[in-house]
Amino acid sequence: MSFNIDLSLFDRKAHNPSFGSLRKTLKPEMAAKLIDFCVPVNPYFPTRGMLQSYKEDLAEILKYYPDQNEPIAETLARVMGLDPQSVVMANGSTEAITWIDHLFVKESIATPIPTFGRWTDQPLETGKRLEVFQRLPENNFALNTAEFVSFVRKTRARTAAICNPNNPTGALLDREEVLHLCRELADLDLIIVDESFIDFSELEGIPSIAAEAQSLTNVIVVKSLGKNFGMHGLRFGYTVSNAELAVALRRKLPHWNVNAIGERVIQDLEANFGAYEASRRQVIADRQYLLEELQKVDGLRVFPSKANFVFFRCPDIIPGAQLRDHLIESEGLFVRECGNKIGSSSQYIRIAANPRAHTDRLVGALQRAMRSLTVTGALQATAGNAYLY
Amino acid sequence: MSFNIDLSLFDRKAHNPSFGSLRKTLKPEMAAKLIDFCVPVNPYFPTRGMLQSYKEDLAEILKYYPDQNEPIAETLARVMGLDPQSVVMANGSTEAITWIDHLFVKESIATPIPTFGRWTDQPLETGKRLEVFQRLPENNFALNTAEFVSFVRKTRARTAAICNPNNPTGALLDREEVLHLCRELADLDLIIVDESFIDFSELEGIPSIAAEAQSLTNVIVVKSLGKNFGMHGLRFGYTVSNAELAVALRRKLPHWNVNAIGERVIQDLEANFGAYEASRRQVIADRQYLLEELQKVDGLRVFPSKANFVFFRCPDIIPGAQLRDHLIESEGLFVRECGNKIGSSSQYIRIAANPRAHTDRLVGALQRAMRSLTVTGALQATAGNAYLY
Repeated sequence: MSFNIDLSLFDRKAHNPSFGSLRKTLKPEMAAKLIDFCVPVNPYFPTRGMLQSYKEDLAEILKYYPDQNEPIAETLARVMGLDPQSVVMANGSTEAITWIDHLFVKESIATPIPTFGRWTDQPLETGKRLEVFQRLPENNFALNTAEFVSFVRKTRARTAAICNPNNPTGALLDREEVLHLCRELADLDLIIVDESFIDFSELEGIPSIAAEAQSLTNVIVVKSLGKNFGMHGLRFGYTVSNAELAVALRRKLPHWNVNAIGERVIQDLEANFGAYEASRRQVIADRQYLLEELQKVDGLRVFPSKANFVFFRCPDIIPGAQLRDHLIESEGLFVRECGNKIGSSSQYIRIAANPRAHTDRLVGALQRAMRSLTVTGALQATAGNAYLY
Repeated sequence: MSFNIDLSLFDRKAHNPSFGSLRKTLKPEMAAKLIDFCVPVNPYFPTRGMLQSYKEDLAEILKYYPDQNEPIAETLARVMGLDPQSVVMANGSTEAITWIDHLFVKESIATPIPTFGRWTDQPLETGKRLEVFQRLPENNFALNTAEFVSFVRKTRARTAAICNPNNPTGALLDREEVLHLCRELADLDLIIVDESFIDFSELEGIPSIAAEAQSLTNVIVVKSLGKNFGMHGLRFGYTVSNAELAVALRRKLPHWNVNAIGERVIQDLEANFGAYEASRRQVIADRQYLLEELQKVDGLRVFPSKANFVFFRCPDIIPGAQLRDHLIESEGLFVRECGNKIGSSSQYIRIAANPRAHTDRLVGALQRAMRSLTVTGALQATAGNAYLY
C-alpha cells in the first residue's frame, strides 16, 4: 500500500504542513485512512451536543460580529475561576506570543530548548537576542530550574519563556518549581509560562500557576483553548497576568480578535465542563497507554511525558525523516519529525496521543519499520553510507 | 409592543454592542423579531450549498489547524486575479489596520472624517498625531481630493488613510480620483485605501485600485472578506500592496491568523463566484431601494451612498439616540446611531441595506416615528428643553 504523499510539503522551515493540506494531496480512499499523530488534539471534545448546536446555528454564528475581547474574557474568567481583569483573549496562543514579543520583550529572551517554534523564531524574527538553554536527553529533558536561573544571570537576558509541560518533550515542572523560578527571576522584565498543554499533565492537581500569576508583578501565563478543547481550527487562546499587564496587552490587540464560533464555545463551556473534564482524563489515559506501548518498541528511546504527546529518539541507524516518510507513505500515519526545532534533531519524533486503536496501529507499524529500516540502515551503514549521524 | 432592551449596552465608547449580545437580552419571541440594520452584511451569501457543506464538515474543520498565511493568500489571489506575492491574509480587516498602524504609521496620519472608528482610534491609541479632515454634509460628504492633498501638506502628515466608499457616509471616489490622490501623495510613507465596502459600490466597473496598488510604492489596499461574503463572525480580510510591503507585513503578523472556516470559504470561492456576484448585485439593488424609500420619509436628510448602507441626518428636533432607542424598543429595529464617530454627531444614523421587506418595515416605522417624535420634540422645544442642538 502506498499513499503517494507529496513529500515536498515537508520542505517548509519551522512547521509541518497542515493535516488538511496533506490530505488534500491524496485520493479520497487513502485520505480517509490517514491518521494524524502530528497535531496533539483532544479527540473527545467538543461534545456531540455542542457540535450539533453549532451546526444548527451556523448561519447565525457566521453572520454576526463576535463581541469584543473584554466581554468574552469575562465569560471565560468566570468558568476558569479567574479575575476577568487578568484575562486577555487571543486569536490562538500564537497571537498572544506574537504581541507579547512585540510589546514586552525588549532586547533579549532566554528559553530552554527544544521548545515550541514560536518561542525561538518569533524573537529572532523581531531582532531580539535569543539565549537558548539546552534541555538534555540524559535528564529526560527535565528543566533544572537552578541551572536555568544561573543561565539567565550569565546571559543577562531580560525576559524568560518556559513551556510547561514542555513541547515537544513532555517534561513537566511541578507548580512549586515554577513558582520558585518566578521568585528567583522576579527582577526580570517578564517571565512567560506557556501552559498550552497543561490540562493533559495530571489527573488531579494540574500544576498551572494561572491563579498565582494574577498577583505576580512580571508573569504572563499563555493558555491555549484550541488544544484543550479539540478545536485547533478555531484559533483561540488567552493569557493570565496581573491586571496592569493584561490592560497593556488588551489595549494593543486588534479588536474583535476572537471569532464568533470561538465566542460561542466559550459561552458553552460552563454547561459542558463535566464533559470536558472527562475528555481531558481520557486523553491522559491515552497518553499513558501510548507511552507504555512505545516503550515496547525495540530501538526507540522513549521519554517520560506529562503532555498529550510522547517524544522519542530513533535509533542512530534510522534517520527520523526517513521513518516519518516511511510511516506516512506505507502506513498513512502522519508523525511529527522534530528536526526543524532548535535544540532537537531529525532523530526525534513527537507522537500525539490518540485513541487506543490508533495507537495500536502506530505501534504495529513502528515495530515493522524498526525491523525493515534497521536492516536497510545496517546495509547502508556497511556500505559507507552517510545515514549514521 | 415593547422589546425591553437593555439600553446600557449602548454605553460603550466607539462601537455598538454586537447584535448577538443585544438579542440575548430579549425574550426569545421578541429576539426573533429583531432586525439588524446596524451591521452592513451581505444577506445573500454564503450559498445554502456552502453552508450545508460547512455543517457537514464542521467537526473536521474545527479539529485541524488551518494552513499558514501564504498558501491561503495564494488561493485567494488566484480567484481575485492578483499576484500571490501582493496579498496578505488578516484576521479581519481590523487586524490589518492594527498592524499597519503598528509597523508603518510612524508618527502622524491624516484621514477624512467621519470614518471607520479604527482609522481614528487606532493611531490615537498608539500615540500618533491624528490629523482629521472634515467631510461636509453640504457636499454630501464627498472628498475633494485636491483639498485633502493640501490638508496633508499643511499638516505634514506622513501617512494618509481613506475609506472608499466611505464608512459611514457611503460617499465614493472613482478609480481615477483615487489614483490621482496616490500620485499626488507618492512621497508619503504610506497611503492606505480601505475598500471594505467597495464590492457594493457599482454594478459594473468596481473602482478598486487593488490591481494598481501592486505596483505602487507606498499604497496598501485593505479589503474585508467578512463584509463581502456575509460572514462577519468569521473574521477574515486581506491587504494588497507591492510585494515588498506585503512581505514586511506578512512577516510580522501572527502565524495561523486565519481560522479554518475562513480558509475553507476561500477555497470555495472560485466555485461559488457566480453566486457571490449575484448576491453583490442584489445588495446593490437593496441599497438603491433603501435610498429611494428613505428619501420619501419627511424630515430625514438622506445622503447619496455607494456602499451597502445609507447615511441620514435626523431633524434637529429629534435626537438620533432617541430615534435609535425608539426604533429598537418599539419596533425591534436596530440602527446605527453615529454619535460616537469623530466628525459625525448623534444626529446621524447609518442604515445597513436589507431585503426589501425589512426596508419596508423600517421605512414605515420611521414615518410613524417622525410623526410621534416630532410632536414630542416640538412640545419639549417649546418648553425650553435642550433637545434642539
